[in-house]
Amino acid sequence: MESVKITGLIAAPFTPFDDKGEVDHSLFKKYADFLADTHFEYVFVNGTLAEGMSLTVAERKATAKAWVNCGKERLKVIVHVGTNCLKDSQELAKHAEEIGAFAIAALTPSYHKPENEDCLVEYMAQLAAVAPNTPFYYYDINFATGVYINCSKFLKLAKERIPTLCGLKHSSREMPSAHGCTLVEEGKYQVLFGTDVQYLSCLVLGMSEVVAAPVLGNLFHNIKKAFDNGDLETARSLQCKAQRLNEIKEKHGGGINIAKSMFTILSGLEMGSVRLPLRGLTPDEKKRLETDLETAGFLDLAKPK
Amino acid sequence: MESVKITGLIAAPFTPFDDKGEVDHSLFKKYADFLADTHFEYVFVNGTLAEGMSLTVAERKATAKAWVNCGKERLKVIVHVGTNCLKDSQELAKHAEEIGAFAIAALTPSYHKPENEDCLVEYMAQLAAVAPNTPFYYYDINFATGVYINCSKFLKLAKERIPTLCGLKHSSREMPSAHGCTLVEEGKYQVLFGTDVQYLSCLVLGMSEVVAAPVLGNLFHNIKKAFDNGDLETARSLQCKAQRLNEIKEKHGGGINIAKSMFTILSGLEMGSVRLPLRGLTPDEKKRLETDLETAGFLDLAKPK
Amino acid sequence: MESVKITGLIAAPFTPFDDKGEVDHSLFKKYADFLADTHFEYVFVNGTLAEGMSLTVAERKATAKAWVNCGKERLKVIVHVGTNCLKDSQELAKHAEEIGAFAIAALTPSYHKPENEDCLVEYMAQLAAVAPNTPFYYYDINFATGVYINCSKFLKLAKERIPTLCGLKHSSREMPSAHGCTLVEEGKYQVLFGTDVQYLSCLVLGMSEVVAAPVLGNLFHNIKKAFDNGDLETARSLQCKAQRLNEIKEKHGGGINIAKSMFTILSGLEMGSVRLPLRGLTPDEKKRLETDLETAGFLDLAKPK
Amino acid sequence: MESVKITGLIAAPFTPFDDKGEVDHSLFKKYADFLADTHFEYVFVNGTLAEGMSLTVAERKATAKAWVNCGKERLKVIVHVGTNCLKDSQELAKHAEEIGAFAIAALTPSYHKPENEDCLVEYMAQLAAVAPNTPFYYYDINFATGVYINCSKFLKLAKERIPTLCGLKHSSREMPSAHGCTLVEEGKYQVLFGTDVQYLSCLVLGMSEVVAAPVLGNLFHNIKKAFDNGDLETARSLQCKAQRLNEIKEKHGGGINIAKSMFTILSGLEMGSVRLPLRGLTPDEKKRLETDLETAGFLDLAKPK
Repeated sequence: MESVKITGLIAAPFTPFDDKGEVDHSLFKKYADFLADTHFEYVFVNGTLAEGMSLTVAERKATAKAWVNCGKERLKVIVHVGTNCLKDSQELAKHAEEIGAFAIAALTPSYHKPENEDCLVEYMAQLAAVAPNTPFYYYDINFATGVYINCSKFLKLAKERIPTLCGLKHSSREMPSAHGCTLVEEGKYQVLFGTDVQYLSCLVLGMSEVVAAPVLGNLFHNIKKAFDNGDLETARSLQCKAQRLNEIKEKHGGGINIAKSMFTILSGLEMGSVRLPLRGLTPDEKKRLETDLETAGFLDLAKPK
Repeated sequence: MESVKITGLIAAPFTPFDDKGEVDHSLFKKYADFLADTHFEYVFVNGTLAEGMSLTVAERKATAKAWVNCGKERLKVIVHVGTNCLKDSQELAKHAEEIGAFAIAALTPSYHKPENEDCLVEYMAQLAAVAPNTPFYYYDINFATGVYINCSKFLKLAKERIPTLCGLKHSSREMPSAHGCTLVEEGKYQVLFGTDVQYLSCLVLGMSEVVAAPVLGNLFHNIKKAFDNGDLETARSLQCKAQRLNEIKEKHGGGINIAKSMFTILSGLEMGSVRLPLRGLTPDEKKRLETDLETAGFLDLAKPK
Repeated sequence: MESVKITGLIAAPFTPFDDKGEVDHSLFKKYADFLADTHFEYVFVNGTLAEGMSLTVAERKATAKAWVNCGKERLKVIVHVGTNCLKDSQELAKHAEEIGAFAIAALTPSYHKPENEDCLVEYMAQLAAVAPNTPFYYYDINFATGVYINCSKFLKLAKERIPTLCGLKHSSREMPSAHGCTLVEEGKYQVLFGTDVQYLSCLVLGMSEVVAAPVLGNLFHNIKKAFDNGDLETARSLQCKAQRLNEIKEKHGGGINIAKSMFTILSGLEMGSVRLPLRGLTPDEKKRLETDLETAGFLDLAKPK
Repeated sequence: MESVKITGLIAAPFTPFDDKGEVDHSLFKKYADFLADTHFEYVFVNGTLAEGMSLTVAERKATAKAWVNCGKERLKVIVHVGTNCLKDSQELAKHAEEIGAFAIAALTPSYHKPENEDCLVEYMAQLAAVAPNTPFYYYDINFATGVYINCSKFLKLAKERIPTLCGLKHSSREMPSAHGCTLVEEGKYQVLFGTDVQYLSCLVLGMSEVVAAPVLGNLFHNIKKAFDNGDLETARSLQCKAQRLNEIKEKHGGGINIAKSMFTILSGLEMGSVRLPLRGLTPDEKKRLETDLETAGFLDLAKPK
C-alpha cells in the first residue's frame, strides 16, 4: 500500500436517528449529497459526533456501508473503527476494507488505558494489520479519552510497525502538538486537524486538511479559497463567523446534543435526537437555539448555494 | 422482584487467557472451586480486573455462562454488563437473566459521558428494564470512567425508576460517599465496597460486603471473623497485611497486569497475560514480583487451607 | 529535638474576620476556650479552613501569636507555615519557634510544583531547618494543591534529611495512603488524619489523631470514648451523625464559606465572612443553612456541655 | 485612565539568581539591553517564568523597580502582581503604580479558588482599584492555576467593574477561547497571547501581541516582519524553527528549569539556577541541553544581530 495524501474537506457527520432511536437509513443519500454540495470531499464516519461508541458493531458496519454506497463518486469514506475492544475494532477494520472504504482510523481504548506510547503503537499495529490494503490514521482526542500521549512519539515509534499508517486525526487541543506531528520524518505523516474552530490557524501552518462538523462546509471552503488567494482579511472575517457560531453552541451547553440540533436546524436534514447517556434537547431548548441562530443571521450559512 | 441483601465475600476474578490471548475455558471449574475454597460466596464477573471491556459481547456471554455453570451451588454470579453502548449492555443483561445470574451490575458509559445524575439514571433504567427479574447494581468507579457523580443522588433519583435496583458497587475512593449511600432511604440500598485495601474501615461503618481481588479471600474472611468476635487487634493486624500486599503491587506498577500476575503466583492458577492496550509483564518482571512476595512471606497467603 | 507523639483532638479553626474583613483579635480568647471546652487539645492554625493562604505573612504571625497566647495551658498550637514561597515559609517557621509553638506544619508550594518527592523533601528540609527545635509535620492535601506525591516515599526519603520530622497531616482522600504512612519505619511517623468525616474508619486502623473542623469536638470526643470502650454501636451511630452533618454542608455547596457559617451558627461565635476569592454567603443562604441544621436537630451539637 | 493598546513584542524574563539563590541585581541593565536589542519593547516581570510566586513581596518590589530603572526608554514594564493573597497583591499593585510601571497584571489565587467568574471579577476589581491610573490585565493560565473560567465571560462581567481593564494575558492553551476574547465588546479588550509556540497562528487571527520567552525576540520579530510583508512561506519556516526549539525544551523535560538554562546558553547571560521546589539542572543535564542546541544550529538564534 502506498501512502496517500488527503486533499479536501472532511466532514464528521452525525448519525441520523429515527423516532425510536434507530439509525435512519432513509436519510443517507440526501445526507451525502448535502455534504458534497457543501464542498466536503471526505466523510469521517462513526466518530465522536456520530456517537459511534453508542452504536453496536453491527450498526457501525451498516452505517459504514451506507456511507460508502451513498457517497459513491462524491465522497471518500474514512471509517472510524475505534472501540474499547481490539477484537471489535479488528472486525470493523476488516469490514471497512471489504466494503472499499478509502481509509480507517481509530482512537485508543479509554477504559483500560495504554500506559505509554509503545503499548498504543502495539495495539494499533495489531488493529491496522487486519486491513493491510487500507490507509490507517490514528485518532487522538485526549480530552475525551483521558489518554494523554505524545503524538510525535507515537508516529516515530509506529513508523516501522504500522506500514499502512498515513497520519493522524488530531482532535486534541494542543496546537503545538499537531504542528510538531507535521515535522516528523520530514512530513511523512499527514495531520488532519479535528478542532472545528481553528481552521485559519492551521492553514497558516501548512495543515490544510481538517475534519469539521458537517455544518461548516461552505464556511471552511471559503476560508480556504480566501487564504489561497492571499486574501487574509476575508479569511479572518470568515473565521470570526465560525467562532461566533461556535460560541452559540457553547452558550447552549456545547455538547454533541447541541451540535446535532444545530445541524438539523441549519441543514434542514432531520438528524433526530441523541442516544443515552447523552441528553436529548427539549422542544424549548431547540427553539431557543434556533432563535439565537436566526438572530445571528446564520440560518443560510450551511445550505448548498 | 424483591430486594435482596448480599452477605458474604464477593470476588472480582481475572479472566484467564491462553497463550493466544483467547479466554481459557478449561480453567473455570478449578477457578470457581479455588474461590469457594478461599471463602468467596459471590463472583462479580466481566468487571474491571477481568478486562471485561476488552472482551467482545460474545466472549462476555460465554464467560458469564461459564461462571454460572462452574459456580453452581458454591458461588452466586453477578454479571457486569456495562459497556459504552446501551444496546450491547441490554443484550448482555438479557442474557444474564436467561442464564440465571444472581444479579447484574453496570458502570456508566465513559466515552460519551452523562451530563448529570438524571441522564445516568435514565440510562440505567433502560438497561435494567430488560432484565426485570434480576437484581441490579450500579457500579461507580469514577477514577476509571472519568464520570464523577453524586452516588447518593443517583440512588434517590433511581428509586422510582429502577425497580430492580438493590444498591451499588462503590469502587470510587471517597469513603464518605460510600457511607452516605448506606444512609439513603434508611438503608434501602446496599453498598458493595470495591476498594481492596480498606475492608476494616468499611466493616466498622457497617458496610460488610466488599468486592475484592481474588487473592484476598482468606485474609478478608479472617478480618471479618476477628471483627465479628470483637478482636480488633487481630483484625487490624490482618488489615496491615492486606496493606503490605497492596504496597508490593504498587511498587511494581500497580496495574491490572501486576495484580493478575500476583494472583497467578499466589493461587497457582495460570491466568495468562493481559490483553492490549494493557502491557504484559516480561519474565524478569514476573520474577521480581515473585521474589518480593516470597520475601514478604506471602506465598501461602491466598491458598485454600 | 526528640520526636513527639500527639494525643488528643486537633481543631482546624477558621479565622474570625470583622466587618471590614480584618482579623478579629477580640475573639481569640473566647474561641480558644470554646475549643478547649469542646474537648480539643490542639489547634492547627493558619491552615486551609483558616484561609491561611489569604493572609499576609504579618497577619499570619499575629494570628499564630494570638493562638499561642490565648491557648496557653489549654491548647497546644501547631502553626501552619506553608506558602508558595520558601522564604516566606521560613520567616513564619522561625517566628513560630520564637513564640513557642508546639509544632509547625507546611503544605507544598502549588503554583510551581515539585516534580517529584525528592524535590519536595529538599524544600521541606530547608524549611524545617530554620526551626530546629520544633516538631515538623508535612501537610498533604493533594486535591487542593494539585500535587500528587507518594506520602510513604516522602517519609522514607525525609528520614535522614529532616531531623525534626514527626509525621504528616494527611488530608488527601486516599485512606490506603494514610494507612501506609503508619507502617513506614515501624510507625516512626504519626499520621494526623485530616478528613473530617472518616474518624471511626481511622480509629479502627490505629490512627487516633485527627485534625477536625472546630464544630466536631463533642462528636469526635464521644466517638473516641465509645470506641475505646468497645461500644462500636454507639461509635457508628455518632459517625453517622457526623456524616449527616457533612451532607448538610455539601448540600449547601460544601465550601469553606459554608463550613465557616455552619460553625458560626453552631458555636455562637461570630466568624464573619470569608476573604476573596471565596464568596461570602447571602443572608438568605445563611438562613437556609440554619434551617437545615435546626431541622436535623443539630443546633446544640457543638456547644460545650 | 484611557484604554491603551500594546504594540510590540513582550518578553517574560526569567529572574537571575546568584550562587546563593538571591536575585542578582547586577545583571538587570545588561539584561534589559539584551531584550531591547533583540526586538522586545515590553517586559512582563515577576510572572511564571520569573518564578514570581517564589519571591517575597519585598523581592518582587525590588525586581519590579530594577526593571523600571533599567528598561527606561527602551522597555515598558508590565508588573505581574498576582499572589494567593489579595492584600499582598494590592501592595504590589500600589507599588507598581508608584514606580511608574506601564501596566499591571494578575493571575487568580489558586489555592483558594474562585467558584465562578463573578467572584474572580470581584477579586480583580478590588485589586485593580488600588492602582487607578495603571492599565490592568487579567492573566489566565488555567493549566497552572487549576482555575478554568470562561475568559470572555470574565471580560463581559468586568466591563463595568474594572475601569482600568485593558485586556488579558491568555496563556491557557485553548486558542478559540483567546480568539473569542478578541470579539468581546467589538474588540475593546486586547489579548496578549502567552503560549510561545503559536505566534503565526495568532497573527493570522489578528492577535499580534504575544508574551514570549526572552529567547524568542529575533525569531518572533522576523515572523512578524515576514507576515506583515505577506511572505507566509518565510513566516511558516520561522515558526517551524520555534517549534523545533520548543521540542528540544520538551525533550529535556520542558519545565522552567530547562527553559531558564536554555536562555542562559543562548543569551550568554547567566541566569543561575531556579528556586525550590523547582529542581536545578545538574552540569551533565546542562551539557546535554547545550549539545542538542548546538546540533540543531540554534546557538546564535537569540543573540542581538
